[in-house]
Amino acid sequence: MTEHTTIPASRGLLSDRELHDIDAYWRAANYLTIGQIYLLDNPLLREPLRLEHVKPRLLGHWGTSPGLSFIYAHLNRAIRLREANVIYVCGPGHGGPAMVANTYLEGTYSEFNPDIAMDEQGMRKLFRQFSFPGGIPSHAAPDVPGSIHEGGELGYSLSHAYGAAFDNPDLVVACVVGDGEAETGPLAAAWHSNKFLNPARDGAVLPILHLNGYKIANPTILARIPEDELRALFAGYGYEPLFVEGHEPVLMHERMASVLDDAFDSIQAIQHAARNGAAATASRPKWPMIVLRSPKGWTGPKEVDGLKTEGFWRSHQVPLSGLAENPAHLKLLEEWLKSYRPEELFDAAGAPVAAIRATAPQATRRMGANPHANGGLLRRSLDLPALHDHAIALERPGAIKAESTRVMGRFLRDVMKLNEASENFRIVGPDETASNRLQDVFEVTERAWMEKILPEDVHLGRDGRVLEILSEHTCQGWLEGYLLTGRHGLFSCYEAFIHIVDSMFNQHAKWLDACRDIPWRRPIASLNYLLSSHVWHQEHNGFSHQDPGFIDVALNKKADIVRVYLPPDANTLLCVTDHVLQTWNRINVIVAGKPPSWQWLSMDRAIIHCRAGVGIWDWASTDDGAEPDLVMACAGDVPTLETLAAVQILRQQVPDLRIRVVNVVDLMTLQPKEYHPHGLSDRDFDALFTTDKPVIFAYHGYPWTIHRLTYRRTNHDNIHVRGYNEEGTTTTPFDMTVLNGLDRFHIVQSALDWVPRLKSVRVGLKQAMDSKLLEHRAYIRAHGQDMPEILDWKWGQDADAALKRPD
Amino acid sequence: MTEHTTIPASRGLLSDRELHDIDAYWRAANYLTIGQIYLLDNPLLREPLRLEHVKPRLLGHWGTSPGLSFIYAHLNRAIRLREANVIYVCGPGHGGPAMVANTYLEGTYSEFNPDIAMDEQGMRKLFRQFSFPGGIPSHAAPDVPGSIHEGGELGYSLSHAYGAAFDNPDLVVACVVGDGEAETGPLAAAWHSNKFLNPARDGAVLPILHLNGYKIANPTILARIPEDELRALFAGYGYEPLFVEGHEPVLMHERMASVLDDAFDSIQAIQHAARNGAAATASRPKWPMIVLRSPKGWTGPKEVDGLKTEGFWRSHQVPLSGLAENPAHLKLLEEWLKSYRPEELFDAAGAPVAAIRATAPQATRRMGANPHANGGLLRRSLDLPALHDHAIALERPGAIKAESTRVMGRFLRDVMKLNEASENFRIVGPDETASNRLQDVFEVTERAWMEKILPEDVHLGRDGRVLEILSEHTCQGWLEGYLLTGRHGLFSCYEAFIHIVDSMFNQHAKWLDACRDIPWRRPIASLNYLLSSHVWHQEHNGFSHQDPGFIDVALNKKADIVRVYLPPDANTLLCVTDHVLQTWNRINVIVAGKPPSWQWLSMDRAIIHCRAGVGIWDWASTDDGAEPDLVMACAGDVPTLETLAAVQILRQQVPDLRIRVVNVVDLMTLQPKEYHPHGLSDRDFDALFTTDKPVIFAYHGYPWTIHRLTYRRTNHDNIHVRGYNEEGTTTTPFDMTVLNGLDRFHIVQSALDWVPRLKSVRVGLKQAMDSKLLEHRAYIRAHGQDMPEILDWKWGQDADAALKRPD
Repeated sequence: MTEHTTIPASRGLLSDRELHDIDAYWRAANYLTIGQIYLLDNPLLREPLRLEHVKPRLLGHWGTSPGLSFIYAHLNRAIRLREANVIYVCGPGHGGPAMVANTYLEGTYSEFNPDIAMDEQGMRKLFRQFSFPGGIPSHAAPDVPGSIHEGGELGYSLSHAYGAAFDNPDLVVACVVGDGEAETGPLAAAWHSNKFLNPARDGAVLPILHLNGYKIANPTILARIPEDELRALFAGYGYEPLFVEGHEPVLMHERMASVLDDAFDSIQAIQHAARNGAAATASRPKWPMIVLRSPKGWTGPKEVDGLKTEGFWRSHQVPLSGLAENPAHLKLLEEWLKSYRPEELFDAAGAPVAAIRATAPQATRRMGANPHANGGLLRRSLDLPALHDHAIALERPGAIKAESTRVMGRFLRDVMKLNEASENFRIVGPDETASNRLQDVFEVTERAWMEKILPEDVHLGRDGRVLEILSEHTCQGWLEGYLLTGRHGLFSCYEAFIHIVDSMFNQHAKWLDACRDIPWRRPIASLNYLLSSHVWHQEHNGFSHQDPGFIDVALNKKADIVRVYLPPDANTLLCVTDHVLQTWNRINVIVAGKPPSWQWLSMDRAIIHCRAGVGIWDWASTDDGAEPDLVMACAGDVPTLETLAAVQILRQQVPDLRIRVVNVVDLMTLQPKEYHPHGLSDRDFDALFTTDKPVIFAYHGYPWTIHRLTYRRTNHDNIHVRGYNEEGTTTTPFDMTVLNGLDRFHIVQSALDWVPRLKSVRVGLKQAMDSKLLEHRAYIRAHGQDMPEILDWKWGQDADAALKRPD
Repeated sequence: MTEHTTIPASRGLLSDRELHDIDAYWRAANYLTIGQIYLLDNPLLREPLRLEHVKPRLLGHWGTSPGLSFIYAHLNRAIRLREANVIYVCGPGHGGPAMVANTYLEGTYSEFNPDIAMDEQGMRKLFRQFSFPGGIPSHAAPDVPGSIHEGGELGYSLSHAYGAAFDNPDLVVACVVGDGEAETGPLAAAWHSNKFLNPARDGAVLPILHLNGYKIANPTILARIPEDELRALFAGYGYEPLFVEGHEPVLMHERMASVLDDAFDSIQAIQHAARNGAAATASRPKWPMIVLRSPKGWTGPKEVDGLKTEGFWRSHQVPLSGLAENPAHLKLLEEWLKSYRPEELFDAAGAPVAAIRATAPQATRRMGANPHANGGLLRRSLDLPALHDHAIALERPGAIKAESTRVMGRFLRDVMKLNEASENFRIVGPDETASNRLQDVFEVTERAWMEKILPEDVHLGRDGRVLEILSEHTCQGWLEGYLLTGRHGLFSCYEAFIHIVDSMFNQHAKWLDACRDIPWRRPIASLNYLLSSHVWHQEHNGFSHQDPGFIDVALNKKADIVRVYLPPDANTLLCVTDHVLQTWNRINVIVAGKPPSWQWLSMDRAIIHCRAGVGIWDWASTDDGAEPDLVMACAGDVPTLETLAAVQILRQQVPDLRIRVVNVVDLMTLQPKEYHPHGLSDRDFDALFTTDKPVIFAYHGYPWTIHRLTYRRTNHDNIHVRGYNEEGTTTTPFDMTVLNGLDRFHIVQSALDWVPRLKSVRVGLKQAMDSKLLEHRAYIRAHGQDMPEILDWKWGQDADAALKRPD
């Protein structure tokens, strides 16, 4: 372990006093980190360390921690000197004990957790709770003050940091990137976020690449490549890398202080130039970044049992273990802890000495108390346009076609406009905003772009509020960071490719879930997805673009967090959009199509329908409010169209059949009430779906999802689901439904199979449907497109007489 | 569009003849590409182009295509000159029509599809089938000869390319990376694959970054950053970038030919040095890469309706549309097609002229016919060690503990050893091979590493066959590329973080599914996952590391492709491993734990059990082969332990209760036979699970998965599932089961709820279980670890007398 005996006189920037204090602070943070990993009791080592003072299970990660605390200490100094507004994103989140230690030293930890006071008793609790049943997890989880990034799954620190910096002109987001994390794809892509950060309007991100050389059991790539390649790589990413390399504490303190000063100066200069010059035309600056190369497990045991430990991967987790079997290890642990000279760091009561406390900034400048890291504190509700101003006017169901997402785009355009002054709403997406037909937002904003802009470029600008990069990971990370710091947004994506961020979705859902138990975490705006270009509209791109399975990933997360909406037309999509933008602490998944499609509900009806989430469409039903022969249920825009077309066929063929049409907008209504807050009671479910009649359910996604949601319902055995069966290729839109048996003809055939009253027409009508299917197949093979009678089919035109008109 | 009027005399490397022919080839490829996108008929424009010759729906991507064909043409030249062994990975996979065009010109397309002959009639069919119902998709899908990479979802070309190059010393994998694709995380990480490629043993990857400047509606990052940054970036990634930039065909042909010569020379020099020098100590070379900057939609319409089209994103898909409404566009299309002078390119019969055909290589040197791109042709079965040599010897169930994955590691070590000479087996993983306890493989191999190796490094070497990078994306991409070129492998990963590659899994499953319909695609080895450090063993890392949902993603894909195995102990894990390594065209998901755990089955019993996939454990049951009072089912190692512990409690408390224990290894057996080839018939299912008795099912993952699989079974209403309910934190292993109600005490309580015969003991035994749970909670809060009686619990020790011994 490192000798901390005497701190030599300063040789540079720092005064002796400053050097002494910052080093004492760092030693205290390291001491508190090791204490958390190892100690149950005797926190100040005021008696000789005995086995019963040590935790029986040793958990936690020492390796990255001293570097994290070193950075924290020096950021504190920079903040104090400049009254800077800084938050700390900790990429190597398993350095949780270090983040806890630092927030404890600055006082925020005890303020949020009064039970963990700044005295010996508090320190005992602080140590004991770490990675202990009933205590706190080992990562920079939501319960760590100042954290917006758990870092359990690696790769997202830098995109989170940029998300936090957008539209926060005074904020500097210091982002520590571990060299393990730096190997991940999402992190490798996120370096390019600087192409989207406008120094005139946004804050700054200061990436600090922490090269400590090793992962769990391997060297890291970036720590081993030649230094010229490392420099070239970050120059190539568009940064100005500043290096801090070494292991001798005094020299490292000097160097880090000086480099951080340079970095903050450089950030100030960039921002000053951009904000006082011709900002709109300025090109993207070369932002500073820091490469900190320090030993893994710095100041820890140099060797254990003759094997290299400090500066090697053996420091990754717990460098000394087997203490019960090996008294020498216990001794070594005591020496290691004492090497930080705790008696100089903590006073008689066990509180950090005044000199250490004074190295931290004050009040909300402390990184653990910065409100940006508890974004709910800063969240302001969005101003939303009036729904009716955007409604599609509709004479009767099926009277006209509209592009649902395009209508939503006009609504979002007005959301943009109404909240322009607040600068708290962004749309992100992988180059698909226009492809998903949200292009009307470009009437009021542009795509953010800090590289060269050519005369022929369209809707590109320095001040754009739409962020487009062909990386779903980066989009998701940006939006999460933006929401976690108190703002609002929407992620528009092709449905199939949202699977790319499955794991990020999982982690964000877990973060929100954990926050529910932390009283001081204020609610943040929901993460809203628009999944368009969905499975039924990817007939042109083919099989690789067809996957509705993200809904299933979403359903695995906590019911309190997740909502899934399948609006059948433009007005319902508007209602859902209006709703989700007002929610918090949720993840809302909206699936909606973009091509011109038949419209069903007036805005008034849409509002009522969406409020319930599920309901009978009387105007399409023939059960006259009585018990039906058959329930035809649908969820999703294409399944709704096919269901209504099937209803029309059945009505023409069997006029006295009592059909009930049920449409589901909010998928969660299908679950039992006990499982999901939106779930219908059994009584309400039975009232809609009956207790014993056949239900033909046309569903947007994989059919078993409906079974999964309804298996506890009385009538479950009679629910027959049609959906996506993983059949697809490049073909026509209608043929996609035929390949998967979701088309009107198959739906009619399914009704014929299950409805006793249809027995007399079964054979004939089945044959008629088969003929239709053959005709369809022959037609598309000959013409390459769907039959006009299918495309131009109009609800209510043929069957108008038989239809009850909606009000 | 580009004027192709006269090809000026050569000014450099290429002879006039060569230049003429390569340009003619390129024009022919472009002509065939446009023909596929636009034409139904009149393929050679032998009559004036009329509307009825044009497809009614225009689908496809022109923008990237001319660049892809330009590269193809020049690779052909390089192959011919050197007899080189080259395959072509097409990152911008939506350039599918270009890949089809090139393979048609070289003859392979017609050889694989005799119906599409090299004459006018064949060309008509070639054009018509593209993006047409019943035809072919628009990407470099499996039906494209020479493709191992569909490119529908972007980001994986480079990792696929490296995967193909490993252990193929003579192969050069030319990998075209689109500048859109280059923005994705997985692609950004994959550039670092060069740190793992050994020039002495492996083949070469020649990345060709195709900067055509635009995505769907945006410029690309890499095309717009300053050139010095671009150079620095690739120098930083460790490559030697060679630039080909421009738009004038003759100059570009010259430059490309010369740069490709340089690149192939450089590859040869690197390989020669490595293979003739001290290969084991040589450091990683700077491999060449090519940056090709050419206009998007090169040679297409310069402007359409007054808007810039060539060299802009308007060329992305179909530059001319609305032909029915706009006769001028039809005229422009005809001019565009004629600008390639088809009359010079195709003979009277419609076949490419001899000079064009001669520019392609011969036989299997043609990239469409290279057997490496149809890897099943090269696949050799693995030599596998005898199962019994690795079996855990077991006196009786529960007699000993073992680390299951460690036992598997010894088996894999011998797989490595037995197939060393074939060089066709690799293990990939994100720095978790040892953490997942497969470290015994390092007795016979190392981790591959081409950077500096320090004296203290452990198991790092130039010739290692284990590939570890902290990027699940890169691991998955490498393994897919390795399998697609005819080899075998295993991906070992933490269970929670395999979600990172959900989308890659989906794409690979779709690829395998599509291959089933392509007769000439030979089966490739299955993609095998070992998911360890699973949800029940992440009590130390906490909530972010707990997620068993990958199984649900897998279940959404085609039943013919996917298998999920949950071996309950080491011997069953060995059986499953032995099995999956012999399968093909599958994705096998194995979930198994690593810590010391009780062992249940002798190898003989394990073999029988795994062959059936599900079965009654007689030795643990008390139903004596008769109808039980209760079925206790389990799937997964931890659920099996908790079930057996619950059985033991019930047997002690209610000795005459007839319990049947059913263990599920192969999850797919639960599905109906009609849904999955491994599914049990209803009769067999009923025989195991009864038709009316309560089933308490302890499952490894989310409980609704079992309902989804069994909802059609007779006894489904009586199946009560316990599993992971998304409850977790940092706690003890047993407490993880308690938090989710999967522990023995909750299982007993569940039995008490549902078994009528237990009514008399219900109240008392429920209370006893509650006391146990309280005792557990108090104990772990006090001691930080599980109660010894839970950890040391031994099946058969207390209950030995009551147990039937297995043979």
